[in-house]
Amino acid sequence: MHDETAERVALLRTASGAASQVFTTLLTRSPISRIDVAKLTGLSQAAVTKAVNPLVAAGLVDDRLQAARDGQPGRPASPIAVIPEALLAIGVKVNVDEIIAVATDLRTRVLASERAPLTARDPGTVVDAVAAICARLETSLGDAAGRLVRIGVSVSGDVDAAAGVVRESGIMAWTGVDLGDRLRERLDVPVLIENDVRALTIGEHWFGVGVGTASFAIVTIGRGIGSGLHVNGEVVEGAFGVAGEIGHLPLAAPDRICACGRRGCVEAVAGASAIARAVSEAHGRPVAIDEAARLAHEGDAAATAAFREAAAIIGTAIASLVNLAGPELVIIGGEGVSNFDLFDASLRAAFAEHAFGAAGRCRIVVRPHTFEDWARGAAAAAIRVLVR
Amino acid sequence: MHDETAERVALLRTASGAASQVFTTLLTRSPISRIDVAKLTGLSQAAVTKAVNPLVAAGLVDDRLQAARDGQPGRPASPIAVIPEALLAIGVKVNVDEIIAVATDLRTRVLASERAPLTARDPGTVVDAVAAICARLETSLGDAAGRLVRIGVSVSGDVDAAAGVVRESGIMAWTGVDLGDRLRERLDVPVLIENDVRALTIGEHWFGVGVGTASFAIVTIGRGIGSGLHVNGEVVEGAFGVAGEIGHLPLAAPDRICACGRRGCVEAVAGASAIARAVSEAHGRPVAIDEAARLAHEGDAAATAAFREAAAIIGTAIASLVNLAGPELVIIGGEGVSNFDLFDASLRAAFAEHAFGAAGRCRIVVRPHTFEDWARGAAAAAIRVLVR
Repeated sequence: MHDETAERVALLRTASGAASQVFTTLLTRSPISRIDVAKLTGLSQAAVTKAVNPLVAAGLVDDRLQAARDGQPGRPASPIAVIPEALLAIGVKVNVDEIIAVATDLRTRVLASERAPLTARDPGTVVDAVAAICARLETSLGDAAGRLVRIGVSVSGDVDAAAGVVRESGIMAWTGVDLGDRLRERLDVPVLIENDVRALTIGEHWFGVGVGTASFAIVTIGRGIGSGLHVNGEVVEGAFGVAGEIGHLPLAAPDRICACGRRGCVEAVAGASAIARAVSEAHGRPVAIDEAARLAHEGDAAATAAFREAAAIIGTAIASLVNLAGPELVIIGGEGVSNFDLFDASLRAAFAEHAFGAAGRCRIVVRPHTFEDWARGAAAAAIRVLVR
Repeated sequence: MHDETAERVALLRTASGAASQVFTTLLTRSPISRIDVAKLTGLSQAAVTKAVNPLVAAGLVDDRLQAARDGQPGRPASPIAVIPEALLAIGVKVNVDEIIAVATDLRTRVLASERAPLTARDPGTVVDAVAAICARLETSLGDAAGRLVRIGVSVSGDVDAAAGVVRESGIMAWTGVDLGDRLRERLDVPVLIENDVRALTIGEHWFGVGVGTASFAIVTIGRGIGSGLHVNGEVVEGAFGVAGEIGHLPLAAPDRICACGRRGCVEAVAGASAIARAVSEAHGRPVAIDEAARLAHEGDAAATAAFREAAAIIGTAIASLVNLAGPELVIIGGEGVSNFDLFDASLRAAFAEHAFGAAGRCRIVVRPHTFEDWARGAAAAAIRVLVR
């Protein structure tokens, strides 16, 4: 790490609450005038200036932007902006059969990206693969690698981000894996481990839909059914590191046993393997999820019914989330959205049936996230820890 | 309203974001040192002093407290404190057959309280009763009534607090009642209308369990099943004014029709009238909830089964809330807690069965709130709007 980089990190790590608020506002809203920073943070303009000056001196913020003259008379409000490339991060998304990694700037613009297949899902193999892919990204970055300050790694399941431990991941078949410590032995940059959907939610909050939306949820459909929730200005973390487990709401009949061992979980009906299993049983032969989707598109009755049942329980689960938390917007993502036409009508009908009163005004939109978007979320989660 | 009182209100209403943060911190944490206020708000000590000075001048904050000398050498940190009686509020809880009202100081200490039966639940009768009870409280306050600045009224149901409209209240059989406007015609003090459970949650957040707890939910059992959720530093309001509708999670079988018209709501199994109905059907005669509880205590099989079924679905609903929002603590309140022994074991067993991973560490405690506590919540909700 360059000296200059170390100084920038130290400045952010030791920032007061006010300075941290100012930097976060700049990070997510640049370019912006000091006056608007004061308005958004509730700080005085003097306090904003006091916070901005050391950021400018350290090369994290640019105060020499050309002021936009929008035809107003008088002195224009001079905007300031974060210098995104002042510090860099890597985000890694661990899937069951592949890892996807991106090197990004502070605003998670992708500078380089890599993918690598996973031949096995045991922690040792994953640690080797993450270390290797990070090394390749550092090589791609060249000199800029000296500004790399954080690595975020996101995994599906119950993740204790503070301890760096994956407590339970059904998809990886992991229990109590100290991924953070294992990676720290192999990497020379601090590492954050985070739940994958929460990381995606952090990315959307700071650099996506969240900038203009006070409260929203992301619901991911596919192999697993997950969600991330953003209310009252922050992503909901859960007091014990667990939140957003929409796939484990007990909305199904008790005879539907989930991979997690519990009865009646949403995922036991609506996860990709549950849909594939239902179609396989009806046809008396193994049918994978892709074939199940193709059959449903061709009008196959069993496949259509399986997707419809899955869609209805996902819509009911979204209504449950909305009745409890009342978000403005629900974004549906995850690999399942490539077949969203098979879910759409039944999902929305079930939502409308169970949403309570005005909560039903919540918009439901579909947004196909690439795996690089998920990796960007992991980078956003790592950057967020850096700046507060 | 006295001139001095009007000045205090104007000061709070025009406070900057920082000044408002400082006053809220003083309100909930007094007595407290300026240094600790700075730590909690993330503001500089200079900014805290700047915010405190006008509050002292207006008689809202006392800076002449005796510093506690705790054996430490050097100058003790001199504490400051809000002057709770500087401004007063009234909180009113509207029940289906009774209204309960309290006059309180800024920290919702009760100065006077009144109850009045409701002979009917139409809006006109309720407005008359609220106006009359407020007049009686003002009389009780004597000269202090000059410091009364806000009235909060809480009602069960979907309440649009911003508009002052009760959009839907099953228990009151109201739809689209402009309670705020009707009361404003009758009262000479600004009125806030709020959902009753949310008001109770606001009160707990500021002056109850919330002071030491980062995230919690209140779940109320009884005639209705409701909840209030506090995460990321604030009560969850819902983008459209609806949140915490745990009684309308669709966790029951679709043949259970709720009073709200939807299928499978928790309340359709676990509300007091649903329990009473189940016991009545089994006995072939009308059995009220109090008798149902007595029968269950005597070991009656049908009554025991009805409470057990209700308890299981409430426990499942709490697990759903905890899986999504991950609070540290769930407080069970509501009139049903007087018979909590009939719910306890089945509720906790269902919770343990469906809570996901570490989310299950959430503690569940029972706290019997009196109706005066609910009315204090309405006062807290009104005070909260005043100070931010």
